[in-house]
Amino acid sequence: MSSTSHTLPPEHQASLIDGKAFAATVRQQIREDVLAFHDQHGVTPGLAVILVGNDPASEVYVKNKAIQTHHAGMRSFMHMLPETTSETELLTLIGRLNNDPEIHGILVQLPLPNGLDARRITNAILPEKDVDGLGEVNAGRLAVNLPGIVPCTPLGCLMLLRDQLGDMKGQHAVVIGASNLVGKPMALLLLAEGCTVTIAHIHTRDTAALAREADILVVATGCRELVRGDWIKPGATVIDVGITRTQTASGKSRLVGDVAFDEAVKIAGRITPVPGGVGPMTIACLLKNTLTAAQMQIEGKTE
Amino acid sequence: MSSTSHTLPPEHQASLIDGKAFAATVRQQIREDVLAFHDQHGVTPGLAVILVGNDPASEVYVKNKAIQTHHAGMRSFMHMLPETTSETELLTLIGRLNNDPEIHGILVQLPLPNGLDARRITNAILPEKDVDGLGEVNAGRLAVNLPGIVPCTPLGCLMLLRDQLGDMKGQHAVVIGASNLVGKPMALLLLAEGCTVTIAHIHTRDTAALAREADILVVATGCRELVRGDWIKPGATVIDVGITRTQTASGKSRLVGDVAFDEAVKIAGRITPVPGGVGPMTIACLLKNTLTAAQMQIEGKTE
Repeated sequence: MSSTSHTLPPEHQASLIDGKAFAATVRQQIREDVLAFHDQHGVTPGLAVILVGNDPASEVYVKNKAIQTHHAGMRSFMHMLPETTSETELLTLIGRLNNDPEIHGILVQLPLPNGLDARRITNAILPEKDVDGLGEVNAGRLAVNLPGIVPCTPLGCLMLLRDQLGDMKGQHAVVIGASNLVGKPMALLLLAEGCTVTIAHIHTRDTAALAREADILVVATGCRELVRGDWIKPGATVIDVGITRTQTASGKSRLVGDVAFDEAVKIAGRITPVPGGVGPMTIACLLKNTLTAAQMQIEGKTE
Repeated sequence: MSSTSHTLPPEHQASLIDGKAFAATVRQQIREDVLAFHDQHGVTPGLAVILVGNDPASEVYVKNKAIQTHHAGMRSFMHMLPETTSETELLTLIGRLNNDPEIHGILVQLPLPNGLDARRITNAILPEKDVDGLGEVNAGRLAVNLPGIVPCTPLGCLMLLRDQLGDMKGQHAVVIGASNLVGKPMALLLLAEGCTVTIAHIHTRDTAALAREADILVVATGCRELVRGDWIKPGATVIDVGITRTQTASGKSRLVGDVAFDEAVKIAGRITPVPGGVGPMTIACLLKNTLTAAQMQIEGKTE
């Protein structure tokens, strides 16, 4: 059924999927495409990022998004609003950005403070400016295989997989985690690639046995080191979306994924490290989506 | 992993899932709900069905839909247009029906004649009147688990499964076929029920082996008698969406499904016959969706 070997030499080590290096290549390409787009249309893509409240982690994410947008040659607009912002005020701002021809992408940083309905707010963004791809129109376009804007993290995973594997037709992909943000769009993307797709989640009875069938295993659960070495089919490609900060015995802080890396690296064929795997791809894909959004708006192009 | 037995007595026969009887019950309930809705709001739900061209099978389907709508106590409007109808003419009609307060559901019978873009036309129907659930907004609502209108055939399969099995949490469902009309929405519905879901399709390498893992097997491929008895896990629930007209040796015409029924009935725990299984549920679900659409429009209710 699989092209991979079931016996591995004892010294086997999976090759590492270097998301950091690949994301740098993607960002460089976007920078060139942004310049070409400007030459052709006299327009610079613009991204508006909205942050409500004072969550420190969100502040870091938003700042990084703004800086990388700027580095990619695009215009970056930050809207930092107090925790007391009402839904009406936020919807008014989104309405204004929807109508602003200098803004091609709008992103509302999640999570939102209590009292703000994330679903209603996400859906208020025009589908062609919804660079997070989280609105229902873009979710629908993905589900029925139409051009649209795909959520950044699963898009990043897909780009890594295409780069590593090329044609994935007929491969069995198992996605662990069924969130709207990662698991479900990831499953639909892999289906569109021609993979046989299994989605496992909190109610799944024997996730380990299912995982062992995977030629491609994507893990996005938020449970650190859930996937052990013996959950992995020898030679499989493993994409670890999880990222949790933890403390070592000596009290040092360290980032770990949803896969027990030290075990998995002895069994998998290819694996993303944490950090430096999927993470850097997410912002690169936000930049890509912003450019795609600008192209859709200016050229009527759908990618 | 499964609650079903792996050894069956030689005389084992699956119990038949009587879609015809269940659909009659559903239609009766809808009839009562339509009356109650009228009593409460003074409004009778109305369904507009549009047929373009002269495909004889489509004419039969459209006529049956109109009659059953009428029998359910709703208003039924048929628009039969010549094959020469332009996309602009069709879009103008849809625009008028979108704005007509007497019309709560709009259905364009597929397939459309060449030259008419089914996707553009389906998306022109207001999401709250899109009773086939095929527009991108309803597809997106299903994908992210929001209330919306679900395509009739997978909704019918889900209702049969809920009636037969109750809680499906943790069951492994395998869907064979990945169409926008049946396979993909079916997979998303089963995921929302808490099933572990595998989607197999034309590129899948060993569909038989995957099918044998299924506690719930839904087959929607259009390949007659593709699924053999030995593809089925003993005791599994089998839903056969396929329906193909074929000729017996004596020249008589006969309907067959995607499952080799005579073999499957000896292995499965429960199985839908063809005809009389899924088929009758599809129109019943169209009526249900029309009532749901009217409720959403009049009561602001989302189901």
